Amino acid sequence: MKVHGEQRQDSDFDTLQTFLPETPILASLGEKGDLFFHHSEVNGVTFEELQEGQLVDYEIGEGRKGYELRSARQQQGAPRMKSHTEYLKFNVPARMDFLNITPEIEQVLRNSGISEGLLLCNAMHITASVFINDDEPGLHHDYKKWLEELAPFDPSPERYHHNRTGEDNADAHHKRQIMGREVVVAVTEGRLDFGPWEQIFYGEFDGLRAKRVLVKVIGE
Amino acid sequence: MKVHGEQRQDSDFDTLQTFLPETPILASLGEKGDLFFHHSEVNGVTFEELQEGQLVDYEIGEGRKGYELRSARQQQGAPRMKSHTEYLKFNVPARMDFLNITPEIEQVLRNSGISEGLLLCNAMHITASVFINDDEPGLHHDYKKWLEELAPFDPSPERYHHNRTGEDNADAHHKRQIMGREVVVAVTEGRLDFGPWEQIFYGEFDGLRAKRVLVKVIGE
Amino acid sequence: MKVHGEQRQDSDFDTLQTFLPETPILASLGEKGDLFFHHSEVNGVTFEELQEGQLVDYEIGEGRKGYELRSARQQQGAPRMKSHTEYLKFNVPARMDFLNITPEIEQVLRNSGISEGLLLCNAMHITASVFINDDEPGLHHDYKKWLEELAPFDPSPERYHHNRTGEDNADAHHKRQIMGREVVVAVTEGRLDFGPWEQIFYGEFDGLRAKRVLVKVIGE
Repeated sequence: MKVHGEQRQDSDFDTLQTFLPETPILASLGEKGDLFFHHSEVNGVTFEELQEGQLVDYEIGEGRKGYELRSARQQQGAPRMKSHTEYLKFNVPARMDFLNITPEIEQVLRNSGISEGLLLCNAMHITASVFINDDEPGLHHDYKKWLEELAPFDPSPERYHHNRTGEDNADAHHKRQIMGREVVVAVTEGRLDFGPWEQIFYGEFDGLRAKRVLVKVIGE
Repeated sequence: MKVHGEQRQDSDFDTLQTFLPETPILASLGEKGDLFFHHSEVNGVTFEELQEGQLVDYEIGEGRKGYELRSARQQQGAPRMKSHTEYLKFNVPARMDFLNITPEIEQVLRNSGISEGLLLCNAMHITASVFINDDEPGLHHDYKKWLEELAPFDPSPERYHHNRTGEDNADAHHKRQIMGREVVVAVTEGRLDFGPWEQIFYGEFDGLRAKRVLVKVIGE
Repeated sequence: MKVHGEQRQDSDFDTLQTFLPETPILASLGEKGDLFFHHSEVNGVTFEELQEGQLVDYEIGEGRKGYELRSARQQQGAPRMKSHTEYLKFNVPARMDFLNITPEIEQVLRNSGISEGLLLCNAMHITASVFINDDEPGLHHDYKKWLEELAPFDPSPERYHHNRTGEDNADAHHKRQIMGREVVVAVTEGRLDFGPWEQIFYGEFDGLRAKRVLVKVIGE
């Protein structure tokens, strides 16, 4: 069957009208069985959109055929929520260090196909952080020194009761509270909607083993 | 009226075709008035889904009846955003303490019926926190000691100007900033998408009275 | 053509039934060509809603007209995700200070038209914060003193390696980590779903210049 898009005023329709939300489209069957899609009066769907769409036909009884055309816009649906989840794994070869994971997060966002929404990125371990700050080695040096002052590493069971469990990482649980567990980032026009210097970091406070970071994007 | 689901090729339809988005479904009225739903050519809706759906019929004029079948999938709609909000109340019998509220949050998530999305959980009071960390009493002891060092309780108006208002809880406003106001948690396949040790805590810094925690889930 | 809304039991329909999702509506053409919308059996659409809606008619062939009525509810669509983004600019005339930006955020929320969802508000600069706490000048005084103790301003390159880059704001990068980058706020019934004292603040730690805050609302 040939599919045409053309503007027509007459009404020798076979049966077709689609009551699809957003985009009712009129069509008719020509004498040779060709299908003509007519300009929709109802909204601004263009022939180009129609021709990129997917045509579906089916019997509706009484010898008549029903047609349904889902334009690309229809197939996608008007803004509907999508979600996309990925898990990243990092093995930091030091007890404490910061990794710029912005490129990995941007890749997850691309994979999601989401253009407007929110992106959540969180450490899945409670001795690690995800935070947003500057990609400057001097600052990272300062952060490490500062966090060590605020919550010094001390494996003994005296300073930290947590280390009476056999663990030695009580300090890491404290450092993570200062730097935070997660960031929520706006996704606008398919990009992380960042100010000029914002970069996403994985902050490790009890490293030398693989840990996971969750990235979830929801939006449209 | 009996409702059947069966694959048919003929076309003794009375009137029914549903142009519902996502799932057009064909049906016909049998001689005895039974309704037959036919395999939809358009998408993969199964008879099982049809039979779980809700049948709606109404007069459409000229002595004809219209039928609309909303399968469970249709009723839910293809991914549409839902939201669900609950308020929890906690009365901590100490000035400072931490409650593991993960079971309550999981119950809210079940109540929401949402399987993919984001869950926000925040203290609605500014002298309390919601945070994610370890359910280990030694660590909680360490947190209390540490927070007391960082921002000591001192009801006098000398150390904290805030206490010149007649309040005595300035320290609590500081402790809450360290531990944070809120967590945002990924919801995946109907569960809190957590790493092995993640648990949600309500952190009270000015207790001995009832306070509220908001839980909001958005998703599909 | 006049449009009426009235309850009728008879069925002198011309052709009209709308198979729009959520809201099938019955109508008929009167003898004088007037269109009567009848109470929908299917759901609780009211005549008021119908009359506020947008009537669309088009030829469907065989000399018959099709009518589609999109009530306001339909036009908006049943719960679909919407998103709305705005950027605010603040120029704080001090190195460190806190601005109550709740009124600006409430205005963005009104602009969004979203009634159920989540609102993200974050500093787009890495030496500033957005946080929620009390609008009390004494507390803000205390916060400034406390943050200065935790991470003192020191432009020299000795204390902070970051200041070896020619910057003098390493302290601001630390203060921002204590106070946080962002808040995520529940939107319920069109309002910021806040406890009694919650107010949103922009926290500036390296001011005297314009900086941006992002506000993104997603929901329905």
